[in-house]
Amino acid sequence: MQLENRAELEHFCSLLTEQDYPNLYTAFMKNAVAKRFEPGEVIVFQEEILQRLGYLSAGEAEIHLTSFEGDTIIAERFPPGSLLNAPRYIDGKGSPADVIAVKPCTVLFLPYRMLRSDSILDAETLRLAAHTTAVLYRLTEKVYRAAMLLPLKERIIHRLFLLKDENNSVDITAEKLASYLGVSKYKIHRSLNELEKESRIVNTYGSVTLVE
Amino acid sequence: MQLENRAELEHFCSLLTEQDYPNLYTAFMKNAVAKRFEPGEVIVFQEEILQRLGYLSAGEAEIHLTSFEGDTIIAERFPPGSLLNAPRYIDGKGSPADVIAVKPCTVLFLPYRMLRSDSILDAETLRLAAHTTAVLYRLTEKVYRAAMLLPLKERIIHRLFLLKDENNSVDITAEKLASYLGVSKYKIHRSLNELEKESRIVNTYGSVTLVE
Repeated sequence: MQLENRAELEHFCSLLTEQDYPNLYTAFMKNAVAKRFEPGEVIVFQEEILQRLGYLSAGEAEIHLTSFEGDTIIAERFPPGSLLNAPRYIDGKGSPADVIAVKPCTVLFLPYRMLRSDSILDAETLRLAAHTTAVLYRLTEKVYRAAMLLPLKERIIHRLFLLKDENNSVDITAEKLASYLGVSKYKIHRSLNELEKESRIVNTYGSVTLVE
Repeated sequence: MQLENRAELEHFCSLLTEQDYPNLYTAFMKNAVAKRFEPGEVIVFQEEILQRLGYLSAGEAEIHLTSFEGDTIIAERFPPGSLLNAPRYIDGKGSPADVIAVKPCTVLFLPYRMLRSDSILDAETLRLAAHTTAVLYRLTEKVYRAAMLLPLKERIIHRLFLLKDENNSVDITAEKLASYLGVSKYKIHRSLNELEKESRIVNTYGSVTLVE
């Protein structure tokens, strides 16, 4: 399941290619408005009714789900190449989550109105929005399944696997991991200690490396 | 959130209309193969690569997620009118879950091959599959959010609200509720007792009624 999820996330951020969506790709490169977001800035607000399709051309963003009471969980981290606000192109409903920059981000925006005004562009956009939404659905379903059915240690490994860089390493604190997994940081600490004793990770302050 | 979720589920099972999808609707009514499934029978297997779009014309089906170790959670219950195997039409990937009949079900099937052979039918099917997948994504995201952020009592109310009939009543056992929420039936029993003391539900053996 880990490899599969990782592949899905990588797939997600490489959907918009010139080959598969020639008109839309050209529109993004030529006509989009680029906007910069500093770390901590909200790119899309939960329930916001944004009438633009976004393309994260540089940086990284986190997807935050917040409850009525103000509790937050991080559902996902989007790499460059991710599409923002795609499901809304299909069903007209607001964003289910906040999208927040964690590194300096550049986002290219195209208004829905412009995309819908040309039938070829509209068909390409619908096809891309459908693909994007299918990946989001499969990712969310897997994260939900893991939360419901896996022990915490396996959920930690699963999440680290999604976040790791090319050196199998993740810059992350126990507190941040706790936000991803919806449990207290004390439980995360205990599980990280156990995983280290089992030689499945190397845990230094602020960084975790997966042992393969 | 409850009202919204319920509306989404009702929306989900009324997407395929003659007005919005005239060609696809006609194809389902004229050319589909109807298949009957008895309670307990699997309609779509998890990871199965089924090359047909399904329309649940009668009956009810449950969506079961199963872990590698064989633990199961029920993610959703689909009413008549629901579409089965729609995300795969978009991305070619297998079903993320088992779909299992809980009442006698009639499912109409149309082969993807046939749907793709006609460009108008293909465009309608892609549009419907996109809408279906967007609803599935939003439902899954909300169930995940509830699991992560809400106390068990609120999750029980949330789930009962999704399952209730026109009399605000749900035929369900504590064991079945436990399968929906991924917790032990003892915790469910305790929470049901508390909810009854708070006059938010009436709990008789095998049936729960929501007090409004």
